[in-house]
Amino acid sequence: MKPLGPIPPGFPAVNGILSVGGRPVTEWVEQAGDTPLFLYSADLIRARVAQLRDAMPERLALHYAVKANPFDPVLKLFAELVDGFDIASGGELAVVQRAGIDASRVSFAGPGKRDRELEAAIAAGVTLNCESEAEVRRALGIGDVLGCTPRLAIRVNPSFDLKGSGMKMGGGAKPFGLDADRVPALAREIVGAGAEWRGFHIFAGSQALDAEAIAETQEQALELAAQLARQTGASLPHCNLGGGMGIPYFPGDKPVDLALVGERLGQRFAALPDELHETGFCIELGRYLVGEAGVYVTRIVDRKVSHGEVFLVTDGGLHHQLAASGNFGTVVRRNYPVAIATRYDAAVEEEASVVGCLCTPLDRLADKAGFPRADVDDLVAVFCAGAYGASASPAAFLGQGAAAEVLV
Amino acid sequence: MKPLGPIPPGFPAVNGILSVGGRPVTEWVEQAGDTPLFLYSADLIRARVAQLRDAMPERLALHYAVKANPFDPVLKLFAELVDGFDIASGGELAVVQRAGIDASRVSFAGPGKRDRELEAAIAAGVTLNCESEAEVRRALGIGDVLGCTPRLAIRVNPSFDLKGSGMKMGGGAKPFGLDADRVPALAREIVGAGAEWRGFHIFAGSQALDAEAIAETQEQALELAAQLARQTGASLPHCNLGGGMGIPYFPGDKPVDLALVGERLGQRFAALPDELHETGFCIELGRYLVGEAGVYVTRIVDRKVSHGEVFLVTDGGLHHQLAASGNFGTVVRRNYPVAIATRYDAAVEEEASVVGCLCTPLDRLADKAGFPRADVDDLVAVFCAGAYGASASPAAFLGQGAAAEVLV
Repeated sequence: MKPLGPIPPGFPAVNGILSVGGRPVTEWVEQAGDTPLFLYSADLIRARVAQLRDAMPERLALHYAVKANPFDPVLKLFAELVDGFDIASGGELAVVQRAGIDASRVSFAGPGKRDRELEAAIAAGVTLNCESEAEVRRALGIGDVLGCTPRLAIRVNPSFDLKGSGMKMGGGAKPFGLDADRVPALAREIVGAGAEWRGFHIFAGSQALDAEAIAETQEQALELAAQLARQTGASLPHCNLGGGMGIPYFPGDKPVDLALVGERLGQRFAALPDELHETGFCIELGRYLVGEAGVYVTRIVDRKVSHGEVFLVTDGGLHHQLAASGNFGTVVRRNYPVAIATRYDAAVEEEASVVGCLCTPLDRLADKAGFPRADVDDLVAVFCAGAYGASASPAAFLGQGAAAEVLV
Repeated sequence: MKPLGPIPPGFPAVNGILSVGGRPVTEWVEQAGDTPLFLYSADLIRARVAQLRDAMPERLALHYAVKANPFDPVLKLFAELVDGFDIASGGELAVVQRAGIDASRVSFAGPGKRDRELEAAIAAGVTLNCESEAEVRRALGIGDVLGCTPRLAIRVNPSFDLKGSGMKMGGGAKPFGLDADRVPALAREIVGAGAEWRGFHIFAGSQALDAEAIAETQEQALELAAQLARQTGASLPHCNLGGGMGIPYFPGDKPVDLALVGERLGQRFAALPDELHETGFCIELGRYLVGEAGVYVTRIVDRKVSHGEVFLVTDGGLHHQLAASGNFGTVVRRNYPVAIATRYDAAVEEEASVVGCLCTPLDRLADKAGFPRADVDDLVAVFCAGAYGASASPAAFLGQGAAAEVLV
């Protein structure tokens, strides 16, 4: 039997059924009228933000990375909870604008911004985290044409990476940001051109669980920011320290020790060099804020035995859960936390694989794991589905279409 | 420098620019008004079908697997070229119906068919490739309720797999089809229930390049079909021999030796056992029919140098080309065939990586490959984009949205 990832806290059984937001998933499914279904718990999102606020220095602002989950009710909830939003495309700009989020709270990072995306962002007053000299010059030119003062920060490609991170965004040659040694000259060019100078965006990696590594990376980012500010010779209004905090997906993963990260950052904030005295700091989190608050619920359509192995065939699959199927950024497939939602507190009775409805061997949500005996019409829950689920999966594959989403 | 995959035949340079369907891609981009853009060549699709018809025994019918590319004009073209269509969901049923394809030409395979999908398919007269005893019984029940005679085939999980195939669909415990030893009893149940008995669907794998392995698998499928027909005690009206033929994506890949496959199958057809004398045979191909006919065209938005490495940042990416980015069903990332479309016959001048516009290190279309020197506004072509591109990629990721598609 292969192990399953750890089910995040906050998902109790009620009469043997997984409950989300105080109600059993069967009721949410009935209300939605169909499966599969993404459920996002507003309470768990609020709790996670409160935890962070509690652990982190007060001076640290909190940004939400829209890419993790751009569902409109989720954005509207975050509008009440966080200080800023990071977007990654013109499409995400439209999404935050539709959610009524003020563009002054929004920053835009991404290596391939098109002119029309720069235009929309500059016209709206969004801060651009510029990824190259050429992009800065395009932005300045567009600002001239529009008669707007662009708000420009520089995304720095740091020489360090975040150790143990699932996605490394720094350390060596990268398509993201500008190599640190070229940053001061470009910053002076921005200031000299009369744009609104917004500072640095230093993003070294994401999905790390090691608090020590996260703290060390934040310290390196602070040192780098101070050094670059000194070399620039202009005050540093803002510094985005990136993200980095991951969530436990796989067997053996442990949550980030937030207290350690907060304490270490507090110590550094208490002893900032002169260049950073007036700087506003933020971190930018997506997955960490919303990932564990989401559950993907799918119904068993068939129970099959082939050569002695049990397959629970569901009406969901990798078209909504690409990463859980092991096909997105992973080399070795491991099981996410998955449970039979309608037999949620029952004992393990058999080994079974949970597969999706797609006609491909890639479509596997749990491989040879231990479950209570489940049958047709039982519901399966895939946890850690709040981030990079609905939006990062090929929903149109095999003509399936998107799953419903509900913030509960 | 890392090698690139082989560019398929049929894509000449015209005045130094890649041409598709007789016109340079720059004209197609101008006509479409935007990048990125999928171009599918009708001529190349026609040529591929003709090649197959020529090489294969006349008795073998040709089916198109809609999942490879469900774009409406592509389906309408195949409606003139092939004998049947295989679908994998109710969504694909709606797509073929919209394209005006008669349901009598359609068969439906997929391990997780929902009741409403079975209903729609049975009402329309689609052949169901049933994946389990339970599915057969659901289909019979739905037929009773609807007052229609369901057209039922059994998908067989063969004990052999297709050697060297990218996707193995047989050989051991699988969620697909029914283990062979349980097939005769279920076939008799279908016949006894008065449903229209449609025969077997035997699909052992896909994306194989070794003609010898494909021929051997087809021979095994014929033997298995004869054996199961004998054990069933009913004549076998149809047998779908599956697909299997792959296309060269990666450096060193060689095209399938179609002549060998056709010759071997012809020899077997000339010496069929009694049970298969009256049987209609087909193969079911998706990728092989349309994959090489498609090109994904994306524009360079930025040219960046980081730590001495060149990055060509495009307005496309893994949201349209998940497999080319190395994130779908592959363990080790290798380069697809990729070229600078606007400097198509120029010599290699530098090593560069082509990356997408997404803010993730996964978004890489070509890694450290040799290209002529390209700059902003040059067009990049990713070949082998006709199958499992637009429909099998997470188009909504980072708010990007779908690319345009044009059949030319």
